[in-house]
Amino acid sequence: MKDTQNKRDRRKIPINKVGIKNLHYPIKVNDRRNISQDTTAVINMFVNLPHHFKGTHMSRFVEVLNQHHGRISVEEIEDILLTMRKKFKCRSVHLEMKFPYFIEKAAPASGAKGLVDYDCAFYATLGPVKGKTVFDLVIEAAVPVSMLCPCSKEISDRGAHNQRSTITIKVRGRSLVWLEEIIEMAESAASSPVYALLKRRDEKAVTEGAYDRPRFAEDAVRDVAKKLKSDRRVAWFQVESENQESIHNHNAYAMVVSS
Amino acid sequence: MKDTQNKRDRRKIPINKVGIKNLHYPIKVNDRRNISQDTTAVINMFVNLPHHFKGTHMSRFVEVLNQHHGRISVEEIEDILLTMRKKFKCRSVHLEMKFPYFIEKAAPASGAKGLVDYDCAFYATLGPVKGKTVFDLVIEAAVPVSMLCPCSKEISDRGAHNQRSTITIKVRGRSLVWLEEIIEMAESAASSPVYALLKRRDEKAVTEGAYDRPRFAEDAVRDVAKKLKSDRRVAWFQVESENQESIHNHNAYAMVVSS
Amino acid sequence: MKDTQNKRDRRKIPINKVGIKNLHYPIKVNDRRNISQDTTAVINMFVNLPHHFKGTHMSRFVEVLNQHHGRISVEEIEDILLTMRKKFKCRSVHLEMKFPYFIEKAAPASGAKGLVDYDCAFYATLGPVKGKTVFDLVIEAAVPVSMLCPCSKEISDRGAHNQRSTITIKVRGRSLVWLEEIIEMAESAASSPVYALLKRRDEKAVTEGAYDRPRFAEDAVRDVAKKLKSDRRVAWFQVESENQESIHNHNAYAMVVSS
Amino acid sequence: MKDTQNKRDRRKIPINKVGIKNLHYPIKVNDRRNISQDTTAVINMFVNLPHHFKGTHMSRFVEVLNQHHGRISVEEIEDILLTMRKKFKCRSVHLEMKFPYFIEKAAPASGAKGLVDYDCAFYATLGPVKGKTVFDLVIEAAVPVSMLCPCSKEISDRGAHNQRSTITIKVRGRSLVWLEEIIEMAESAASSPVYALLKRRDEKAVTEGAYDRPRFAEDAVRDVAKKLKSDRRVAWFQVESENQESIHNHNAYAMVVSS
Repeated sequence: MKDTQNKRDRRKIPINKVGIKNLHYPIKVNDRRNISQDTTAVINMFVNLPHHFKGTHMSRFVEVLNQHHGRISVEEIEDILLTMRKKFKCRSVHLEMKFPYFIEKAAPASGAKGLVDYDCAFYATLGPVKGKTVFDLVIEAAVPVSMLCPCSKEISDRGAHNQRSTITIKVRGRSLVWLEEIIEMAESAASSPVYALLKRRDEKAVTEGAYDRPRFAEDAVRDVAKKLKSDRRVAWFQVESENQESIHNHNAYAMVVSS
Repeated sequence: MKDTQNKRDRRKIPINKVGIKNLHYPIKVNDRRNISQDTTAVINMFVNLPHHFKGTHMSRFVEVLNQHHGRISVEEIEDILLTMRKKFKCRSVHLEMKFPYFIEKAAPASGAKGLVDYDCAFYATLGPVKGKTVFDLVIEAAVPVSMLCPCSKEISDRGAHNQRSTITIKVRGRSLVWLEEIIEMAESAASSPVYALLKRRDEKAVTEGAYDRPRFAEDAVRDVAKKLKSDRRVAWFQVESENQESIHNHNAYAMVVSS
Repeated sequence: MKDTQNKRDRRKIPINKVGIKNLHYPIKVNDRRNISQDTTAVINMFVNLPHHFKGTHMSRFVEVLNQHHGRISVEEIEDILLTMRKKFKCRSVHLEMKFPYFIEKAAPASGAKGLVDYDCAFYATLGPVKGKTVFDLVIEAAVPVSMLCPCSKEISDRGAHNQRSTITIKVRGRSLVWLEEIIEMAESAASSPVYALLKRRDEKAVTEGAYDRPRFAEDAVRDVAKKLKSDRRVAWFQVESENQESIHNHNAYAMVVSS
Repeated sequence: MKDTQNKRDRRKIPINKVGIKNLHYPIKVNDRRNISQDTTAVINMFVNLPHHFKGTHMSRFVEVLNQHHGRISVEEIEDILLTMRKKFKCRSVHLEMKFPYFIEKAAPASGAKGLVDYDCAFYATLGPVKGKTVFDLVIEAAVPVSMLCPCSKEISDRGAHNQRSTITIKVRGRSLVWLEEIIEMAESAASSPVYALLKRRDEKAVTEGAYDRPRFAEDAVRDVAKKLKSDRRVAWFQVESENQESIHNHNAYAMVVSS
């Protein structure tokens, strides 16, 4: 059977990334306590393609994934990339996975427990940098929080508009940084964390706590940025905050990226 | 050229709806002042298919639309359905269109003007009911509003959690009901409308106004339902309210449908 | 602490559904072989609210879910509804959950295995029907398939346009119908199933198989409808097919609902 | 009334981008023939914020937009950015707008006309580069096309799998490049363009045309890249192709970015 993909291409255009997108796959993610969590991911896998090959072999991506059975830890990700590199005989390989990640949180007054979901992602690359093969990993968490507007509180005789907001943090670490750590950074930079389960006295605590801690989108990204700048494990970061403004039908947004 | 669609089908299964979905098309919608507004719609068009025909002719849907140049008013919708019915020689025809609809609103204190967008829709059918051909139209508006929690206000010493919410109203009228009217019903049932443009003194007015008018999702749907029940033009309605809770990562929801 | 929700409401409007929407939660679903599968769900939970109560207690929904630890089988769903009914002291309770469901499929020629994901859902209600409390369950599977156009094949000298399509089946059973069964019905009504992993000889088999089995959206819904009509376990069904037409930027759609 | 935003911030963290996201707004876009097209946009507007200011004034973004009445041409975009810069007294300003753009296309055999929609975007910045203020504009078009797999055609005795695909092109021009030009590049790099309206003889032409022109995702991005590389107006580009594979439930993807 002919191998069309292996034919020679004469356009002299190397391809930066070629592969599969939007593959749904069940995965196991190790949390900070080394306990494995079952979740489901949307996965992208790419390789580079030298200019003289006509195409890549798409089925090999799924084969690599099957070989690793969806076990996802930092060690496992590097192994998957190494397998891809060997299988595709190429220079650069990329693996991206987005998944909901669940953390049990206790309500602030009653201690009642509930699972909060965070949209998390890993963006991993293995490829040449100045002649050396480098493993690069960016972790991401999109953290739902509550934000109460300082201006609204300041100028109003009573109340203050507040809203659900998402603080999204991306970190490239020199050494291991946990999803739990960046989630905590986001929550502590907001007017209040959000919870899955709040009894009445918890709702009182969250309402008053947020009122006592008004924060602009600008404040949230600055607080997180300040922490990440002083964290020696962090090589690069980006922090975004997007408020689903309760007084508008559009969002307020702020972003800081490390220089 | 053979007409595969016109072949005889022997499975004896009539098809309730067959047609096209997700067609993007620029449209002109007439507002209450009879001024035409340019916007863009996502359109579905369906017909019924008797059991003995193998398929429908999909290109005819777009031809009908082109014939009417995207002019959309209540009269125009009925005309489009009549054209579809003649062209397809069928009993039931359906036209659905969703589009952003813009209304200029003045801020409550400064009077500064800004356009607020509402996701609106028309669901129209022409078909037999008890031997007669009936034109049926449901109009829909999804109205962004601000909702402030009565429980949170009651139990807290200061502040109250509030959030952006969407009140979605569907109305089947005996006679004409305007999108503007159901949008106003939704906004007046909320803690506060939202605005595109608010200066500082407007933000003060909205904040205090919402604090003075706490509303559960339950309150919003009840207030709208009460108005619609007493409106003699209304033959059927459904009202939903969905709060993007600022203290949770899930939404609060309430729905009333007319019996 | 005051219970605002328990206050008397005087508008005389009972609420059909009130509760929480869009809660993300890890679940375990039992498959046909009684093997449990870990996945993640988006969950809605509603109750009815009599006209004289001002509001419902939203935190109780999450408490019910926690009590059942996300174990989802038909027995478990009815138990969850019973717990809701007791906790809320109400007449009607509703539970909806959407989740990706994974099935390992062997490629048609090589037998190579890969996981295919199906968007599935359960819509469950416990409520009064003619004086009796009835448990009602609708199961849904959205099945990705390949569809090749019979008209295009018929009129063209070579080739035929084909595309990814989604066949969505909802079934209300008198007795148990498995997700696997309705997924198989959808796949056998299409030009070809889709696969996660296809080697070259599999791709040949799928291409030729689809070419030999051209199907309109109309054919797919009719084939499934015919099977469901003759299945004595099925009390009600709806079948939809939506082709992401490769020759248009809009979709072709067909739907049959049982009378 | 206090101006909270103007307070001094002491965290020493400048903010790269702060502003509004997801504002819906009706716009007028000039096409290549200088004819204005009415459509609707989703708009983001950002400015930089020096480290010593606590916040930005969000209402000013909407004021700027109102001042320009949504007229969008390359000249108008630069004017909007200049107005933003003056109003916010800042160094860098950003304007992003995404909108459906409609082009009337004639079917290949019958000449029947229909509107095809393309998701387009402008990403514009005015800010300092090496001491000078530079206006930077990237235009984007996401072009729906039909792609037929060369491998499937080669190895199969009959037929070939094909699918709807999106070719997304971003271009930064040294001088003006029109959306229409990059849309044509994408369509000519595919197996076939897609159309809104195809009569039977058109469907035959499109089916056979695509069968005679098999293309991998890799081919499409290479063809477009080759054209853009040799276009002296183009300073930078990125080309992506994403096939909604009709044999899989995941997509095939290729990307080339100019070095």
